[in-house]
Amino acid sequence: MNNDLILLGHGSGGRLSHQLLDELIIPIISGVAQSGQNDAALLELETLTGRLAFTTDSFVVDPIFFPGGTIGSLAVHGTVNDLAMMGARPLWLSVGLIIEEGFSKGDLTIILEDMRKAADMAGVRIVTGDTKVVPRGKADKIFITTSGIGVMDHELRIHGANACPGDAIIISGTVGDHGIAVMAGREGLEVGPDVISDSASLNGLVTELIRAVGNALHVLRDPTRGGVATTIKEIAMQSGVSITLYETALPVKPAVRGVCSILGLDPLFVANEGKLLAFVAAEAADSALAAIRCHPLGSSAAIIGTVEAAPAGRVRMETRIGGMRSVEMLSGEQLPRIC
Amino acid sequence: MNNDLILLGHGSGGRLSHQLLDELIIPIISGVAQSGQNDAALLELETLTGRLAFTTDSFVVDPIFFPGGTIGSLAVHGTVNDLAMMGARPLWLSVGLIIEEGFSKGDLTIILEDMRKAADMAGVRIVTGDTKVVPRGKADKIFITTSGIGVMDHELRIHGANACPGDAIIISGTVGDHGIAVMAGREGLEVGPDVISDSASLNGLVTELIRAVGNALHVLRDPTRGGVATTIKEIAMQSGVSITLYETALPVKPAVRGVCSILGLDPLFVANEGKLLAFVAAEAADSALAAIRCHPLGSSAAIIGTVEAAPAGRVRMETRIGGMRSVEMLSGEQLPRIC
Repeated sequence: MNNDLILLGHGSGGRLSHQLLDELIIPIISGVAQSGQNDAALLELETLTGRLAFTTDSFVVDPIFFPGGTIGSLAVHGTVNDLAMMGARPLWLSVGLIIEEGFSKGDLTIILEDMRKAADMAGVRIVTGDTKVVPRGKADKIFITTSGIGVMDHELRIHGANACPGDAIIISGTVGDHGIAVMAGREGLEVGPDVISDSASLNGLVTELIRAVGNALHVLRDPTRGGVATTIKEIAMQSGVSITLYETALPVKPAVRGVCSILGLDPLFVANEGKLLAFVAAEAADSALAAIRCHPLGSSAAIIGTVEAAPAGRVRMETRIGGMRSVEMLSGEQLPRIC
Repeated sequence: MNNDLILLGHGSGGRLSHQLLDELIIPIISGVAQSGQNDAALLELETLTGRLAFTTDSFVVDPIFFPGGTIGSLAVHGTVNDLAMMGARPLWLSVGLIIEEGFSKGDLTIILEDMRKAADMAGVRIVTGDTKVVPRGKADKIFITTSGIGVMDHELRIHGANACPGDAIIISGTVGDHGIAVMAGREGLEVGPDVISDSASLNGLVTELIRAVGNALHVLRDPTRGGVATTIKEIAMQSGVSITLYETALPVKPAVRGVCSILGLDPLFVANEGKLLAFVAAEAADSALAAIRCHPLGSSAAIIGTVEAAPAGRVRMETRIGGMRSVEMLSGEQLPRIC
């Protein structure tokens, strides 16, 4: 029996499960210790506006280690961001691990340490979890499902159906970084240090943005799977508005644009994991942009589009050469297992 | 392209993902619709005692359809029960689906319908979710991670470190039913209609029990993976007490005992998914037993053991022939992928 590998018995609920929890998982993700070996974590609510946000995301990214992150940091960032995009203050995470028999304890340790670091950075606690082990060949290394709870500290209603005619659309930085970094990692492409995942927790940036513009902030959304194009199209449909994007305004790193050209990908459809789209009333657009740019995660922010009243659900892009093209959702699967 | 199968594109976040959500997932699990296409569900807290319970569980059961349930009903019951075992009132669930490319939409429909039915029965709402698709051979059909939030309506502190000398230990019914039913389903054994999973939501039973005995209720735990033996050993260690179980008192269906004999399994270590262990102060034991037996899920309840002060962490069983044997946690993996 190799002591460095995860065995089926580590998912049995018995002695080996307890060993794995007590010797590896709990010491790293120490927030779990607080809930002991009970079936659930008990949480004391600090603020009682009476509104919570609750979200879940499963992460199956391939490879599990990629330039700029791991499946562990990604699983924390993704769920923190889903809460932040509702305007909630993320507080608590749960983690469900599905591990393939034979996975290395060393890699598990790196992943859990990454989760812990990402949680600390975002100011959230991992308070409860579960571990399952499936036989070799029945999963691909490790899948992580994180769920999160956040509290609403304000009465703002920020959501996808709130885009209004006249709103400016701001992206908080360059697009396509995460998807291209994962793709490069998977294919072993030589792409240089500029192609690195943007995976990061956006809750701090959202706090600054809310402080700066308050109820002029109408929609927040992180353009993950399907990229900016799919997210913008979703919002146009949810809000029943028409959106125009400006191709020349869209920030894309030259290195990312280069890889996209080679692979025949459009950065507008490539996933991001540390960027947000903010829809802001026109009169507050400059203040919003300034607030985002002041934050370390927002230095490349730009206004990339505007909202009109009609026709509902239409998204167009004004191209580099001055034409207009229609923007639709991602069709099919451009880059599988990007998160 | 076969319209009845799940494709990688259904996990892309793009057009196919939206189709799957809009045409299949949301209509079935209609609670999700309420959160629309936003990143998280917004929840209005009904009661504000200031205490929440939060839990997560990943389900990888094989086979996904077994006598008495499916991976869908199991995923709801398991998470509802984890909340109920803390004395919480379960309110909201999230669901994370990891689906293997090529999985049938028909089977997905059955599973989601089962989740919905189980949620309705338990009085909880599935309010948010996520779907990922991995290439064929990278997962085994479908894995489901459910997380749950419950509210604490009372000031009782029910947990695994609360067992007290003198407590009576009650099991709410026959043991080993779930594990043996899944095993029989997996191996295609001819076992008759009595071997059927006990998978069920226990929150209603817990409500009755709390109403009957209040703070005489010290510990609640559902003996899932590792069975009654592992769970009792955990509690003995958490509470620093000694526990004696009575073999003759342990309710086991004859058909389950028969299959256990053939397979060389001890029902004490086999998983249950609709049973609870309650540790109750001696003077309230009869009231607790009566309350449990009045509930449809508790008709075979029995007092199966008692708690003594020392030595801490020891569990023994008084055997059928009057001897004493030591009871330890499940070692290794008796029945993999039981939940």
